[in-house]
Amino acid sequence: MTSKVFHHPVQIYYEDTDHSGVVYHPNFLKYFERAREHVIDSDRLDKLWREKGLGFAVYKANMTFQDGVEFAEVCDIRTSFKLDGKYKTLWRQEVWRPGATKPAVIGDIEMVCLDKEKRLQPLPVEILDYLTQNNV
Amino acid sequence: MTSKVFHHPVQIYYEDTDHSGVVYHPNFLKYFERAREHVIDSDRLDKLWREKGLGFAVYKANMTFQDGVEFAEVCDIRTSFKLDGKYKTLWRQEVWRPGATKPAVIGDIEMVCLDKEKRLQPLPVEILDYLTQNNV
Amino acid sequence: MTSKVFHHPVQIYYEDTDHSGVVYHPNFLKYFERAREHVIDSDRLDKLWREKGLGFAVYKANMTFQDGVEFAEVCDIRTSFKLDGKYKTLWRQEVWRPGATKPAVIGDIEMVCLDKEKRLQPLPVEILDYLTQNNV
Amino acid sequence: MTSKVFHHPVQIYYEDTDHSGVVYHPNFLKYFERAREHVIDSDRLDKLWREKGLGFAVYKANMTFQDGVEFAEVCDIRTSFKLDGKYKTLWRQEVWRPGATKPAVIGDIEMVCLDKEKRLQPLPVEILDYLTQNNV
Repeated sequence: MTSKVFHHPVQIYYEDTDHSGVVYHPNFLKYFERAREHVIDSDRLDKLWREKGLGFAVYKANMTFQDGVEFAEVCDIRTSFKLDGKYKTLWRQEVWRPGATKPAVIGDIEMVCLDKEKRLQPLPVEILDYLTQNNV
Repeated sequence: MTSKVFHHPVQIYYEDTDHSGVVYHPNFLKYFERAREHVIDSDRLDKLWREKGLGFAVYKANMTFQDGVEFAEVCDIRTSFKLDGKYKTLWRQEVWRPGATKPAVIGDIEMVCLDKEKRLQPLPVEILDYLTQNNV
Repeated sequence: MTSKVFHHPVQIYYEDTDHSGVVYHPNFLKYFERAREHVIDSDRLDKLWREKGLGFAVYKANMTFQDGVEFAEVCDIRTSFKLDGKYKTLWRQEVWRPGATKPAVIGDIEMVCLDKEKRLQPLPVEILDYLTQNNV
Repeated sequence: MTSKVFHHPVQIYYEDTDHSGVVYHPNFLKYFERAREHVIDSDRLDKLWREKGLGFAVYKANMTFQDGVEFAEVCDIRTSFKLDGKYKTLWRQEVWRPGATKPAVIGDIEMVCLDKEKRLQPLPVEILDYLTQNNV
């Protein structure tokens, strides 16, 4: 079951653009990361890392770049997710420019949970509970 | 005459940190840039660039790094400025961690205005008026 | 027909890592971009942009992150490409850590050519010739 | 006594530029960091961090930006340093564009050594010896 859609605004500053005049494409992975941090909650992630040495890592990211995004725009990062067994979460994330009729960028992201020795770990129960409660 | 202090919140994400566990120091210049864009207003900057080919550039930046800033914190970027003749604006910018008693980072920044051939230009009147009105 | 494999070394600096101790994942898209710029040749790209207003843009990027890369490592970015009709080039790019037996990161990247109004354009003949000559 | 001048080449890629067409100014602090890592040697820094939990941190950075640097250029980062008591090293670093007669960017950087709790520590003897030997 897929979650509701979460919205996270991102303003485009000088730092985001490149000399061709639009956002430099790796930066969209940053915006998706920020949006996921807001869905899961940064403090919760920080606690997980400090107390249990567990962190989320991107395993797969399939990105489609359909339009260029420009300086000074405030984009809407739309994020939904679903749980995929004990180990994986699957995220659909999109970048919407103001007034757009289709997303500028689409990302299908697979996340896993690793310990400090980069070994795969099941999703921690506190995250699993939190994500399940926020699934609708 | 120095302006009032403007406040701009910056949340620290994975992207901002380095493997020593704190914010990677060049990123503070990014936060200062974002804060100045909010003081002057990104749309106004965008219009200036598109219509008159004029943009702001940092001429000098004297930075003091007094404390490390960490993942998940939401810092307050405090910005004030004063006009310095026809060509220059002088900015004092500081990074305040939650609950701090002194700034983590202090920057004294000199900005000038350049055209597309990187030639020094006087501050455009529309910016001069706007900054003067917002000086208190 | 797929080209030979091009090699481009990338040293991992503080700037590349995040507080979990490994390279922050969007940065791999940067290394792939740098490697492609060396295959096509930055001066050739710069000339194309300045004289014909044409630039390369990433349309699709399918990334798999199989291992973390660490501070101070010098990785080998392996790049091969093939032409796909008049409009597209398909790139397979991999990040190899020193002494690794499999790639840490794999990217399958689709590139197109756009003009300054972001309209799709056929691959410029000078690039087509250059890539064809370097195909073996 | 000031050291000899160390040279480190930096190629300007898409990632380094912003929509005004030149290198985005915080990136020069990155190039200075890379150059210092090559002077001190990344493996030595990595060993110091892993084995003694000690790392270098920028305390002050006074930057002057005199010229814009452009896509595809390969700049020469010139670095010299001197020791300043038990705790500090002072670095003069400059960015030289191809064929330039004066530096595009000048930085005067003060570095200190911190432990994992961000407490000031004297320069480790192995670094002190290494820097002293390389002082000429």
